[in-house]
Amino acid sequence: MPRRIDYYDDPAAPEPNSLVPAAVAVVAREDGAVLLIRRTDNGNWALPGGAIEMNESIADAAIRETFEETGIQVEVTGLLGVYSDPRHVIHFTSNDEVRREFSVALTARPVGGAPTPSSESSEVRWVAPGDLARYNTGSAMRKRVDDYLRGGAPVVA
Amino acid sequence: MPRRIDYYDDPAAPEPNSLVPAAVAVVAREDGAVLLIRRTDNGNWALPGGAIEMNESIADAAIRETFEETGIQVEVTGLLGVYSDPRHVIHFTSNDEVRREFSVALTARPVGGAPTPSSESSEVRWVAPGDLARYNTGSAMRKRVDDYLRGGAPVVA
Repeated sequence: MPRRIDYYDDPAAPEPNSLVPAAVAVVAREDGAVLLIRRTDNGNWALPGGAIEMNESIADAAIRETFEETGIQVEVTGLLGVYSDPRHVIHFTSNDEVRREFSVALTARPVGGAPTPSSESSEVRWVAPGDLARYNTGSAMRKRVDDYLRGGAPVVA
Repeated sequence: MPRRIDYYDDPAAPEPNSLVPAAVAVVAREDGAVLLIRRTDNGNWALPGGAIEMNESIADAAIRETFEETGIQVEVTGLLGVYSDPRHVIHFTSNDEVRREFSVALTARPVGGAPTPSSESSEVRWVAPGDLARYNTGSAMRKRVDDYLRGGAPVVA
């Protein structure tokens, strides 16, 4: 089973060999519930998202990845922040890609579709804001969710 | 002389072979003047900036590139927007890199240094907001400057 392993400012982290922008989507329903997936590669709960492709914008990447991983169609509504800490390193065991963090978090709202798991997401769930803290996410996802709940100026991290 | 050639939604553009995040800095003085450079690779006026390196954050890239190109030390104050139109393609003739646009525009303020040209910048100038329209920039830079002057929510483009 291909795995994703996150390292945070860890001397034991492998040397990064990849820097690819990723889109992350905070999709919020009108009642405030946020769309989470449970990742198949590390079992954590997470916001949907993934690496940008050569022929798409960051918004198009967020829309495509969200649909692939959740079955929900979205439109982008704003920019939550840019997260680019070189000390956060992600090892994808399938091809030994060691990607350093560079993610753009966008806010979005649902416009269609229904929650549908995928090969990358064993569960898809709308989670009320007050329940988000109960979900086991990695610390990078936790930071994006916390920044979203806090509101305010977009994040440069 | 190495050149930079920008293509905008142009069927004659070469196929992109690179997607590297770049930082662009809108450095504003207290009197509102904005820091511009004149690029040596295409003769246009531009905001300082350049590609992120593997071991730095987007803010650190903006700080480093601004200092290299202008002699001005800055601190980052916010996020203007993310510009990621795959139809904007940039050909660097020195090594035939054909990079598709992916730039993060940050706002910043000067904290030290003095305007100093470099190999990448034949002139460095503080420009009053009302004079910016007189400077010959490429259309991508024009958009970033216009978005900055307009203010409002951060841009997702």
